Amino acid sequence: MGEFELLGLLRERLPAAGPQVRLGSGDDAAVTVPGGAVATSVDALVEGVHFRRESATLRQIGRKAISTALSDLAAMGAAPGEAYVWLGAPEDLDDEGLLEVGAGLAAVAAETGTTVAGGDLTRAPVLSLAVTVTGHAPDADDFVTRSGARPGDALVVTGELGAAAAGLVLLEDSSAGAVDGQDLGAAIADALRARQLDPTPRLAAGKTLAAAGATAMIDISDGLAGDAGHVATSSGALLVIDADALPIAPGVEQVAAATGCDPLELAAAGGEDYELLAALPADALAAAQEALAALGVPLTVIGRVETAEGGNPRAEVRRRGGEAAPIRGFDQLRPRKPR
Amino acid sequence: MGEFELLGLLRERLPAAGPQVRLGSGDDAAVTVPGGAVATSVDALVEGVHFRRESATLRQIGRKAISTALSDLAAMGAAPGEAYVWLGAPEDLDDEGLLEVGAGLAAVAAETGTTVAGGDLTRAPVLSLAVTVTGHAPDADDFVTRSGARPGDALVVTGELGAAAAGLVLLEDSSAGAVDGQDLGAAIADALRARQLDPTPRLAAGKTLAAAGATAMIDISDGLAGDAGHVATSSGALLVIDADALPIAPGVEQVAAATGCDPLELAAAGGEDYELLAALPADALAAAQEALAALGVPLTVIGRVETAEGGNPRAEVRRRGGEAAPIRGFDQLRPRKPR
Repeated sequence: MGEFELLGLLRERLPAAGPQVRLGSGDDAAVTVPGGAVATSVDALVEGVHFRRESATLRQIGRKAISTALSDLAAMGAAPGEAYVWLGAPEDLDDEGLLEVGAGLAAVAAETGTTVAGGDLTRAPVLSLAVTVTGHAPDADDFVTRSGARPGDALVVTGELGAAAAGLVLLEDSSAGAVDGQDLGAAIADALRARQLDPTPRLAAGKTLAAAGATAMIDISDGLAGDAGHVATSSGALLVIDADALPIAPGVEQVAAATGCDPLELAAAGGEDYELLAALPADALAAAQEALAALGVPLTVIGRVETAEGGNPRAEVRRRGGEAAPIRGFDQLRPRKPR
Repeated sequence: MGEFELLGLLRERLPAAGPQVRLGSGDDAAVTVPGGAVATSVDALVEGVHFRRESATLRQIGRKAISTALSDLAAMGAAPGEAYVWLGAPEDLDDEGLLEVGAGLAAVAAETGTTVAGGDLTRAPVLSLAVTVTGHAPDADDFVTRSGARPGDALVVTGELGAAAAGLVLLEDSSAGAVDGQDLGAAIADALRARQLDPTPRLAAGKTLAAAGATAMIDISDGLAGDAGHVATSSGALLVIDADALPIAPGVEQVAAATGCDPLELAAAGGEDYELLAALPADALAAAQEALAALGVPLTVIGRVETAEGGNPRAEVRRRGGEAAPIRGFDQLRPRKPR
């Protein structure tokens, strides 16, 4: 199949364009009329770095590439708008394979109301995707950045933590295989793997937390401790996280036990959960919890924002008694970044 | 150096943010308030596919990645706005090398008034960049697409053709080395290589042609014949190009002679010249030529738009006498696309 025919087939499978798109894929550039403020983020997924074709289906790879990009928009409280996708295709991926990747992208686009408005298709040594996404809000101030957390705010997190890291252990570490199906149960093991392979961007929760008055927000891609550190640095505050309050996903404890690590490490440093960490003024907490309950998304208070004494903004994960829990890096399992 | 320290250094070297940028790189997403219509395009550059580190400097690679993306905005008549960059770094590229690539990106951003508003840095097997760029105009109708060419319009092209292909021949084909410095002259050979390694997006010319009333426009990345074909298909018209009218760059003829190909093939099928092909109503031609002369950009009439008889829109390159000149593909020299 020729390049342009293949692009045509890819385009055919995309959902219809949203109202802000005046000209979609197929010209030199897409044309949109945002009519307000735009949040834009780019995220990449590279074979051998972020996934293996042995453990993820092509459709899952396409889904994850756009989902992780959209997760950054969720963390801004943005309504998803458009996606622009570079797809780097290796020699050993045939047309059907490329269409499978495209079907995964298209499915998440349809589920989230995102328009895939442009793309580029080239050769690459390994299957690679870079996805730039745009999200919308009436005004720039409607977006929630990392920098607004204030002393007295409560720290909240959506959903459950540690699942993606535990899922990665199950996928990658054969020594953890013993736990799978025995102590764990096949359904829970499958759920953990799905959290690693096919994460869900918390778009509705992000918009709701923004509307509820969140002062700062970030998606948990690098791990709760690290991402809380980013909020602390941007906000110039001390973020205190109560280790015992973390909503640890079912099965994480068993996977941790089977591999000899602390469940807290999977939950606080594992990353890729794509849950949202937000700071909320105390008087906004009850309404936010109620609104998220209506979405079916758990919201857990896991700590508080304090003044950074001595001008040393940072995040601390504290166990009962108050001492800081050392969180080992999880990088050996997640070679996401180059260093 | 740590990832975040390196990102900080990359950010420091970027030009100041433009007026539409409310929040630049460093949060979950950048925030812009476009205030009008936006054109967005994504383009990728992959080592071994689009360049070799043996023949291009790291700075040139950074420059070309953003320049080729901006060329798509030039073809819309857009004013450059923001760029979002994924940089995939191989193991053998050290921090200084990454900063060199970043310096190339930053230099073109500064030269063109583009804000690098976001990015992602990950590992990749080879040096890879995907650059998404946004451009602006007051209204969506201000942008020039590929689909408005009408019978009677003149076809015009900016600058000179064939230089990038001839430059690639000089860089890649050792049998062409004999021509370099002898028949050709070192200055002309250097200029041809520079057209391949460091193309200039025709942003001012694109805006000027749009303002002058261009009905269709495209940048010449795949080769004049192929790109004219895209305009023909999108516009439902026949594009007739006069082979003898093509403004062939100095040195192209000598390189073609040395390698046994037709200069017309380098000029019409070589691609990567990143000049603009536009359709202009006859009554807009004189003003457009005058406006481009004021920019110092040559504008050459190379053909005309005719009615596509029998509903068969296409582009034809005709030699004197009217017969269609067969244009061989140039793909063996430019493995830009996967097929």
